[in-house]
Amino acid sequence: MAREGKTITCKAAVAWEPKRPLSIEEIQVEPPKTGEVRIKITDTALCHTDAYTWNGLDSEGVFPCILGHEAAGIVESVGEGVTDVKPGDHVIPCYQAECRECRFCKSGKTNLCGKIRDATGKGVMFVDRRTRFSKNGKPIYHFMGTSTFSEYTVVHEVSVAKVNPVAPLEKICLLGCGIPTGLGAVWNTAKVEPGSTVAIFGLGTVGLAVAEGAKIAGATRILGVDTNPSKAKTAKDFGVTEFINPNDYEKPIQQVIVDLTDGGVDYSFECIGNVKLMRAALESCMKGWGVSVIVGVAPAGAEISTRPFMLVTGRVWKGTAFGGFKSRSQVPQLVEKYLKKDIKVDEFITHNLPFEDINKAFELMHDGQCLRCVMHV
Amino acid sequence: MAREGKTITCKAAVAWEPKRPLSIEEIQVEPPKTGEVRIKITDTALCHTDAYTWNGLDSEGVFPCILGHEAAGIVESVGEGVTDVKPGDHVIPCYQAECRECRFCKSGKTNLCGKIRDATGKGVMFVDRRTRFSKNGKPIYHFMGTSTFSEYTVVHEVSVAKVNPVAPLEKICLLGCGIPTGLGAVWNTAKVEPGSTVAIFGLGTVGLAVAEGAKIAGATRILGVDTNPSKAKTAKDFGVTEFINPNDYEKPIQQVIVDLTDGGVDYSFECIGNVKLMRAALESCMKGWGVSVIVGVAPAGAEISTRPFMLVTGRVWKGTAFGGFKSRSQVPQLVEKYLKKDIKVDEFITHNLPFEDINKAFELMHDGQCLRCVMHV
Repeated sequence: MAREGKTITCKAAVAWEPKRPLSIEEIQVEPPKTGEVRIKITDTALCHTDAYTWNGLDSEGVFPCILGHEAAGIVESVGEGVTDVKPGDHVIPCYQAECRECRFCKSGKTNLCGKIRDATGKGVMFVDRRTRFSKNGKPIYHFMGTSTFSEYTVVHEVSVAKVNPVAPLEKICLLGCGIPTGLGAVWNTAKVEPGSTVAIFGLGTVGLAVAEGAKIAGATRILGVDTNPSKAKTAKDFGVTEFINPNDYEKPIQQVIVDLTDGGVDYSFECIGNVKLMRAALESCMKGWGVSVIVGVAPAGAEISTRPFMLVTGRVWKGTAFGGFKSRSQVPQLVEKYLKKDIKVDEFITHNLPFEDINKAFELMHDGQCLRCVMHV
Repeated sequence: MAREGKTITCKAAVAWEPKRPLSIEEIQVEPPKTGEVRIKITDTALCHTDAYTWNGLDSEGVFPCILGHEAAGIVESVGEGVTDVKPGDHVIPCYQAECRECRFCKSGKTNLCGKIRDATGKGVMFVDRRTRFSKNGKPIYHFMGTSTFSEYTVVHEVSVAKVNPVAPLEKICLLGCGIPTGLGAVWNTAKVEPGSTVAIFGLGTVGLAVAEGAKIAGATRILGVDTNPSKAKTAKDFGVTEFINPNDYEKPIQQVIVDLTDGGVDYSFECIGNVKLMRAALESCMKGWGVSVIVGVAPAGAEISTRPFMLVTGRVWKGTAFGGFKSRSQVPQLVEKYLKKDIKVDEFITHNLPFEDINKAFELMHDGQCLRCVMHV
């Protein structure tokens, strides 16, 4: 507790500018202000959105910044007015806040919280529109309200999920993004029913979590679509019943799926961020009731399109963010499900690396064999 | 009953080819075969889909044909196996069938019936893939399974809604298309809730029926969007609380609506068939839960587009056909609602013309003052 109330100097991986390798350096982390929590990050993974911003594709990306949004840690200290967590609590920082007070949180219709979004989108904290990170007095911006590529980070209380301390932080860090996104897309956004037929476009972590969620929901046919044939085996472990490689067909993939399923699937999920596949996913759906959910994040400016006839004849086009889960309320429940072995987490961790090798972890994302690489910070 | 089982020679308005004025002539109408019903059409309106096909824009349009799909009449005779209706019954022929046997009808998820769709889409009858209309031996094709621009027509039993004979046929003929489409888009497809904010793009018959449906559903703000300022008065009679003319603003209409409603509407409806407005309607919706319903029919080949971010942040894009109503089961209920004065019908009839003047009725559709023109056949 000696550090409480004081600026901490610690290690962080700084993104000084887009596409420049992250640089591990000593930075300063100010104490948390009103409504804020300073967290000792113990373990962090990385996810495609980190790479997306690092590549300069995110119009909201502010540099220099500290990336990272899929992590776990322990509360080091709390700012004024913070009552939900205290030093020593095990937590998962969540990029999707839950203030429980704004019109979005109170609507009962969405997990999107409006309270701090404007500040986090600009890389600053809500209370004073400033950053808590700096290096020799030069500000370093926050990212997604989480910035987990640092030994210590400061986040808003409304973005902190307090979890069961029995759970291993080096595993449950994955419950900060990809796995909940996939499971929730199935359970909360699509509401897949027993006996359903499902198609999943892209079998990375999110796509495989969709497969697992669909299996748990009782889907009987789960078609997994990926151009990497080496994913077939893993896909089946996660619940995919039929692996489909579009390169094996001359027909458009939506036609392949419609033919295989006597008219189309009940539910489809795009888990890549490719607008052409978003269209294919919609058009793979059954007339009358097929629901297609966009899960992947497309490049800025890219647009989806289709013939309106697709919707007029009963298909529904939706999207999901963090799988529709309310972060503070529901991430702790997912941790409990993991402890009861109701959901897979360990199986998504294909690599571990020292934090110092974080640039190597970015490279691993392009390796077809890598799902998640966890780093001990 | 003297005509039962025999070919009838009667008057019909024949569309010999696209864009050529309809020609009133004597045609032959064969008796109904198995599962078919021959109806004496007493009153028919016309709707934009008739003009759409007449203009050659419908890729399914087969010529020569008898158009018309918004009508009412009396059963003249029935074919083998028909048990639901008998000669003398008052009926509304429905372009959306309801067989109660196919996977669509049994799904409980859609009003689209699959049984006869393939035949009606090709202008023929299901049982023998032939037409019941001819002129001097030359076949004339059916349209939408209804072909109501004829003194007598033959339709499938699964497309016939038997209605209360107390109801005036010259009014309830409108319950064959436009009014149910608008009401159902609100009640069945969007499921608008009390207190909702709604935007309607296009204030023709369908858009006004949406307004009425929204008012009945308890919507508190109903924004009506139309470039014709003379619609403002009528719009208010049907429930619109704010009339918006896009030409009065420099900003894109979706931005106007988002600004007027502190973030967007809960529900929006496109009732024109313009793909640009379909996008505007979606983008007028509130983040987190806004639902946009495509009601209008776009020209063949036209495509809708938007940024996937619109859906990922919680908006939902849907469409509706015949307002999601199950035709045989629910059109009779709408007739009862009309008889109880729960829904408007008379108010949509702005013109009446003799059947012989049907080409004038087509011209009237372009008149901003015309909602529906009913012709006694």
